[in-house]
Amino acid sequence: MMEYRTEHDSLGEVEVPAEAYYGVQTLRARENFHITGVPMSHYPRLIEALAYVKLAAAEANASLGMLDEDRSRAICRACEELISGKLHDQFVVDVVQGGAGTSANMNANEVVCNRALELMGRPKGDYEHLHPLNHVNMSQSTNDVFPSALNIALILELRELMEAMRHLQHAFARKGDEFADVLKMGRTQLQDAVPMTLGQEFTAWAVTVGEDIQRVDEAEDLVYEINMGATAIGTGLNSHPDYARTVTEKLVEITTLNLKQSPDLVEATQDTGVYVQLSGVLKRVAVKLSKICNDLRLLSSGPRCGINEINLPPMQPGSSIMPGKVNPVIPEVVNQVAFAVIGHDVTISMASEAGQLELNVMEPVIGYSLFQSINMLRRACLTLADKCVSGITANRERCRELVEHSIGLVTALNPYIGYEKSAEIAKEAMRTGGSVYAIVLEKGYLTREQLDEILKPENMVRPRYTK
Amino acid sequence: MMEYRTEHDSLGEVEVPAEAYYGVQTLRARENFHITGVPMSHYPRLIEALAYVKLAAAEANASLGMLDEDRSRAICRACEELISGKLHDQFVVDVVQGGAGTSANMNANEVVCNRALELMGRPKGDYEHLHPLNHVNMSQSTNDVFPSALNIALILELRELMEAMRHLQHAFARKGDEFADVLKMGRTQLQDAVPMTLGQEFTAWAVTVGEDIQRVDEAEDLVYEINMGATAIGTGLNSHPDYARTVTEKLVEITTLNLKQSPDLVEATQDTGVYVQLSGVLKRVAVKLSKICNDLRLLSSGPRCGINEINLPPMQPGSSIMPGKVNPVIPEVVNQVAFAVIGHDVTISMASEAGQLELNVMEPVIGYSLFQSINMLRRACLTLADKCVSGITANRERCRELVEHSIGLVTALNPYIGYEKSAEIAKEAMRTGGSVYAIVLEKGYLTREQLDEILKPENMVRPRYTK
Amino acid sequence: MMEYRTEHDSLGEVEVPAEAYYGVQTLRARENFHITGVPMSHYPRLIEALAYVKLAAAEANASLGMLDEDRSRAICRACEELISGKLHDQFVVDVVQGGAGTSANMNANEVVCNRALELMGRPKGDYEHLHPLNHVNMSQSTNDVFPSALNIALILELRELMEAMRHLQHAFARKGDEFADVLKMGRTQLQDAVPMTLGQEFTAWAVTVGEDIQRVDEAEDLVYEINMGATAIGTGLNSHPDYARTVTEKLVEITTLNLKQSPDLVEATQDTGVYVQLSGVLKRVAVKLSKICNDLRLLSSGPRCGINEINLPPMQPGSSIMPGKVNPVIPEVVNQVAFAVIGHDVTISMASEAGQLELNVMEPVIGYSLFQSINMLRRACLTLADKCVSGITANRERCRELVEHSIGLVTALNPYIGYEKSAEIAKEAMRTGGSVYAIVLEKGYLTREQLDEILKPENMVRPRYTK
Amino acid sequence: MMEYRTEHDSLGEVEVPAEAYYGVQTLRARENFHITGVPMSHYPRLIEALAYVKLAAAEANASLGMLDEDRSRAICRACEELISGKLHDQFVVDVVQGGAGTSANMNANEVVCNRALELMGRPKGDYEHLHPLNHVNMSQSTNDVFPSALNIALILELRELMEAMRHLQHAFARKGDEFADVLKMGRTQLQDAVPMTLGQEFTAWAVTVGEDIQRVDEAEDLVYEINMGATAIGTGLNSHPDYARTVTEKLVEITTLNLKQSPDLVEATQDTGVYVQLSGVLKRVAVKLSKICNDLRLLSSGPRCGINEINLPPMQPGSSIMPGKVNPVIPEVVNQVAFAVIGHDVTISMASEAGQLELNVMEPVIGYSLFQSINMLRRACLTLADKCVSGITANRERCRELVEHSIGLVTALNPYIGYEKSAEIAKEAMRTGGSVYAIVLEKGYLTREQLDEILKPENMVRPRYTK
Repeated sequence: MMEYRTEHDSLGEVEVPAEAYYGVQTLRARENFHITGVPMSHYPRLIEALAYVKLAAAEANASLGMLDEDRSRAICRACEELISGKLHDQFVVDVVQGGAGTSANMNANEVVCNRALELMGRPKGDYEHLHPLNHVNMSQSTNDVFPSALNIALILELRELMEAMRHLQHAFARKGDEFADVLKMGRTQLQDAVPMTLGQEFTAWAVTVGEDIQRVDEAEDLVYEINMGATAIGTGLNSHPDYARTVTEKLVEITTLNLKQSPDLVEATQDTGVYVQLSGVLKRVAVKLSKICNDLRLLSSGPRCGINEINLPPMQPGSSIMPGKVNPVIPEVVNQVAFAVIGHDVTISMASEAGQLELNVMEPVIGYSLFQSINMLRRACLTLADKCVSGITANRERCRELVEHSIGLVTALNPYIGYEKSAEIAKEAMRTGGSVYAIVLEKGYLTREQLDEILKPENMVRPRYTK
Repeated sequence: MMEYRTEHDSLGEVEVPAEAYYGVQTLRARENFHITGVPMSHYPRLIEALAYVKLAAAEANASLGMLDEDRSRAICRACEELISGKLHDQFVVDVVQGGAGTSANMNANEVVCNRALELMGRPKGDYEHLHPLNHVNMSQSTNDVFPSALNIALILELRELMEAMRHLQHAFARKGDEFADVLKMGRTQLQDAVPMTLGQEFTAWAVTVGEDIQRVDEAEDLVYEINMGATAIGTGLNSHPDYARTVTEKLVEITTLNLKQSPDLVEATQDTGVYVQLSGVLKRVAVKLSKICNDLRLLSSGPRCGINEINLPPMQPGSSIMPGKVNPVIPEVVNQVAFAVIGHDVTISMASEAGQLELNVMEPVIGYSLFQSINMLRRACLTLADKCVSGITANRERCRELVEHSIGLVTALNPYIGYEKSAEIAKEAMRTGGSVYAIVLEKGYLTREQLDEILKPENMVRPRYTK
Repeated sequence: MMEYRTEHDSLGEVEVPAEAYYGVQTLRARENFHITGVPMSHYPRLIEALAYVKLAAAEANASLGMLDEDRSRAICRACEELISGKLHDQFVVDVVQGGAGTSANMNANEVVCNRALELMGRPKGDYEHLHPLNHVNMSQSTNDVFPSALNIALILELRELMEAMRHLQHAFARKGDEFADVLKMGRTQLQDAVPMTLGQEFTAWAVTVGEDIQRVDEAEDLVYEINMGATAIGTGLNSHPDYARTVTEKLVEITTLNLKQSPDLVEATQDTGVYVQLSGVLKRVAVKLSKICNDLRLLSSGPRCGINEINLPPMQPGSSIMPGKVNPVIPEVVNQVAFAVIGHDVTISMASEAGQLELNVMEPVIGYSLFQSINMLRRACLTLADKCVSGITANRERCRELVEHSIGLVTALNPYIGYEKSAEIAKEAMRTGGSVYAIVLEKGYLTREQLDEILKPENMVRPRYTK
Repeated sequence: MMEYRTEHDSLGEVEVPAEAYYGVQTLRARENFHITGVPMSHYPRLIEALAYVKLAAAEANASLGMLDEDRSRAICRACEELISGKLHDQFVVDVVQGGAGTSANMNANEVVCNRALELMGRPKGDYEHLHPLNHVNMSQSTNDVFPSALNIALILELRELMEAMRHLQHAFARKGDEFADVLKMGRTQLQDAVPMTLGQEFTAWAVTVGEDIQRVDEAEDLVYEINMGATAIGTGLNSHPDYARTVTEKLVEITTLNLKQSPDLVEATQDTGVYVQLSGVLKRVAVKLSKICNDLRLLSSGPRCGINEINLPPMQPGSSIMPGKVNPVIPEVVNQVAFAVIGHDVTISMASEAGQLELNVMEPVIGYSLFQSINMLRRACLTLADKCVSGITANRERCRELVEHSIGLVTALNPYIGYEKSAEIAKEAMRTGGSVYAIVLEKGYLTREQLDEILKPENMVRPRYTK
């Protein structure tokens, strides 16, 4: 038989399961928000970050003489347990919730409080001795705790994302080296353009992912600014004049992250611009990953009725009806991740725009969307690197053959015979199916030696003195 | 110790856990797609729908003489078990996957096949006797199975959504009746406008939700069109000439849904317009729900420094720092749901736009996004109805007081003294803080009797003969 | 030297150019809104629609005895001039404006008033005799005039859009017939799938555009509902009890459009769901047009290093550096239109969500975005039909050759030799570069006669009895 | 009678108006693209930038010995005329065009060429002497010219945007100072929270706009990277090995902008990430401006039935039916601008994602959308600063009165009597309508002296030692 303890808040009494570390407010919130079905415990980084904040606040309050030694010590030890991964199953509130994160904060206050009570040798719920609000939440408000914790969790997540991106960057770079001598046609607007190497193509993708890592890194820099000490609306009501500085220092110490206090706490408490910025950059990553995956799918199209310049490693049979068909399933799933991330960006923009006056109450959906975007992008990068890029092979013969039969070679003649004669040759090649080489010779515009030199594809993949 | 059986596909052999009903292709897909962490089993409607399709196909094939009685019977019984909710835990592939749903289809083929083998008294994996592709997938391709199953699942989900919306509509309508005689100021552009009743306000929301139900209903109509019989690209390759018609009839029979065969199967197999349309309508629902929740939060703002015309039922303490504060947490969470749905709409648009030639390979993320939107909207409607709207009370005195002190009453004078004199009175009231009534009398523009009649707020909430 | 007349409003006096038909309020609005630089006159349909509304209101007021014959007649004649295209240059307010369209309405009131004054033999500005508000705007508010006029203008624009879409549909359908016997490979996921005809491909696009016309038509149906008679907030304050019905009837008569009065005018005055719905459908059209254009660009890729199954008509030289290059510029510009329309949809969703209480003040940007989307889509459809689709030719030989060398033919063998043997053949063809036909013969799975019958591509483009 | 000259390109001959400076390719493009109706000439910065590029290229080619002195000098003089604002009416191509900007580049090539021919004393069209492609476009391709010019134009536009933003920032900052001593209630979730000053509120907006300026500035930094010398696909085909470096140096010299050559020209030619990044930041600006405008409208709501803490300067009469109504039209139009910018961001994301292989052909719609966003934001900032913020006045009495009657004051009691007793007081105040002050006294929790000190609102707007 389930046992209960009785707790109360300003709305009345509630029966809480005796063994639960959370309390009355968590229980109400769990009842109120049946939305995504995803509890906070799904995001361990967020719980870890909340524990960092509660720990730093307790230490700051103790050091300023606001909180006695016993309580402070118990709170700190409870927080350390959360940081080490314990009791995460006690975070039961839906990750998308009303109230600007108040329920997330209260869930943390209650779990920390009850675990600390235990550590003090007290029963759970004995709030006379240690109170979730008066002590665990001392000098704090959801409105500084929640965004600060969110930022810390995001930093931890972003570091993993950047690592995954670097992994992908290297996979492309290695292929760039491997294919450095594979000559192929470049294409613009899906039309044959001029020659390049397959190595240039893969290297460009490595470069582009590398640039995105820089952009993520710059966006991450902005996330280090936190508003601890703002309390309710940034005025610092009910906090010691030295508290904001002290708690931030403590947080830096505990997390070893280079966190900074916002210069204007009123502004910081209502502003969610940093999340819009970050999401904008994640969207950029998504847009570019999607473009690369589109390219991979194009270049590997075929095997016989498409471009077929490269082969993606086969990961699974491609069709339930077409035997032997192998599909580019990895790039396809990355495309889908990208679309999801781009959608989340709109969600975040709208949620940010909906902030009113001293607070943005929509932070939970912002945090949820960011976590999803970061996680999906991270997995997408790892999957793309390991299950696709690193196994790509080139169809060298096919690549070269396409170059040699192409009309685009004619471009190299411009500096010698002018655009109009070149266009005339291209047109004739198109009409007759002939080769550029043969037609130029036939017309006598250039000698065979000149032509051999100019049309050598290897000469066409970099700038070259033409007079 | 875990036991295994050996299965193979065109990529080679794989060890499958002996007790698993899924097989080699499912296993590969599970390995390939670590994306959302959400397995297909999270969406029981989709599994149910896949089973309907497999069942109908087996019956159609049997009735056309393509599949023998024994195999057909076993397949059908296995499908019925899935429909009744069994073996859903065998659907282990990530809901977002490459391959246009091939892995989802194969997961279904393999689970049905192995369960059917058991029912035939055969061991799992004995594909000589019953084959996941040759028999369970007979006359089918992922490209007709997956979208058809998706449509069936969507219909089932949409019906529940519409029920939840009707529940919300009624909650608003009941409040519309309850508040029919509560006179209050209407506001346009957040500026005081002219009087109305609180009943008119709530009734308007009931009407607006009612219209949205109609729109969802119309959009749902389009989802009934399915492309069974298209096989790979709509040409019906490898299917009996009567198969498309037959399998659709069987599906209608089994599901009792009024499904229809698409008139052009090539078009139907590549087109995802129906999902864009549906998502557009869900977005409309979200936009309007969000607007209503914004209004609820405005009208209940205060209690002392805001509009405070209505009270939302308190659901939980509102603040970890501000005692006694009660926040509009339910409308707030509905706003967040709306933003998520609007974001999903962008995801779906992009995924739809990314279709190429004979197929849209991005259907999994389309399905996932639609399921999320529908589920979140459904829960939001129920939550809003039960945890907010039905408990709303009106501050009648406050409402009336605001009307009586308002300047907007002056509008009613237009037909009698003209716009310019009315504007002059408004200006003077604004400047002096006086009442419209007193100023008009003072200026002698109208008699007290006329004024009493014209400015009676009850006369202002509907059209009225003014000469 | 410029001459002026003096006008005043509640903010004070202003010098209006003597020859201007607009007045003080228009002038203020022109000063206030320097936003897009696009004046209302850029959208003649909107001015025409405002004139219809003013005309109908004057007639309704006259017939109800609220407005005398002389004034009514003059107002009506002025409106008819606007409808016939005169004085549009007097609509100088920026199309994106604050105030929910009040400035647009006042611009109309003032122009109609001053032109009517002239027709009455009075000087402009002689508002004692005819007043822009008391008479021209009688029984009206911006809040019913502006959305009603917007709806009428949208209907007129949508009709032209649907005509353009039909033009495009027919262009595709004609090509569908023309290419009915061109056999080609179908492709799914950019991988070779199974044969089809090029006619099936173009016909599918005709069908898909046809379906979109139906969706636009259904969305248009909703636009016929107008809120005339709502006045400020839907309560009909200051209007005759018979006015709403009468003015709607007059509007139907004048415009010959099947307009209907909204059943709940309070709801109708605050709800912009119809614009969200319409925009969602326009987005659907855009998504699908973009997909088709992507396909056209894919199929015409080359000429020698791509798919090259079809030729788009060359519209202009394609490159300033690559002679002879011809690019698919028409599909490319249509893609860009699609992206703009999809962006507008987000704008419209946000603007609609921002409505508050009794009114949505963001209607101007909603209207502007819709007009842009509709116009751009219309031009895109005409351009695509006339400058691209109608001139497309097929490379029949290339198409057939790709089919004959494809491995995808193996799919047709499934019903005869099973999926696994077929996959084995496909794999061998892939490895050796050989043909499916030769390998099957070599393996002796089927006789030459059977093979000839089964692999005949013509047999593969429709369902077929296989036993 | 109109006179013509005959020009030809690879598609054939065309009659060009004799006086036109543009030529055959411009004419074809004008015919092909009837899309927005907005010609390139609408964006003078873009024309100026194209002229900078052509000028720098001519100088670079001359200095490398590729172009003779006469031709180079004539080209340079023609470019300088364009830079000084001449001949802009010759840029007639629709700003949204297919072909990746080829038509824009050709329009520039032809206008520069024909004007240079005139300067050389030759008739227009005498391309034997100076050729638009062989000479004006020497060493160039649309694929480096267009994005480089776009970047330069964007830098010029962004500088003006940042100036406008600074103007707005200062307007807010000045009001922040002016209202430093106006005590008011802060609100979170639209519910009364705790006191602050109106100065803190306006200062926060100044800070937030200031941060956005920094973000725009950082995004602008990325725009300085250009890909001149890439020619067709980044390989530099047909350019001198020193050309890329030289032309970039020349551009720096001519424009005095700190432009930099991209480190990987292949990557740079296909990547549009910089535009996505920039648009993401513009969206951030829009989101925050919109939030601020929502706040301004909330705080000025009323005058009698809303919050009414501040007065926006009246800019125009607010209603055609409600006399004396004055609406917040300026914030309203800024909201609408924000929604448009957020929509453009989606357009840009999709256009960027649509890049394929060596080029992104959708750059015209990207450029168009960015120009619109930047221009509209710039005008919105100036309008908001000058027509709204700088004229805002505070209703000091109203602000103070709301604070004094508020329940939120109770928060300050937490540190003295604990959260639970405070909540009890709040609840009683709510129920009885009484004041926090009176209830605390009555309960005897604190002495009058303590209360006076603690509840002094001035003490509540910053951190404070509470023990």
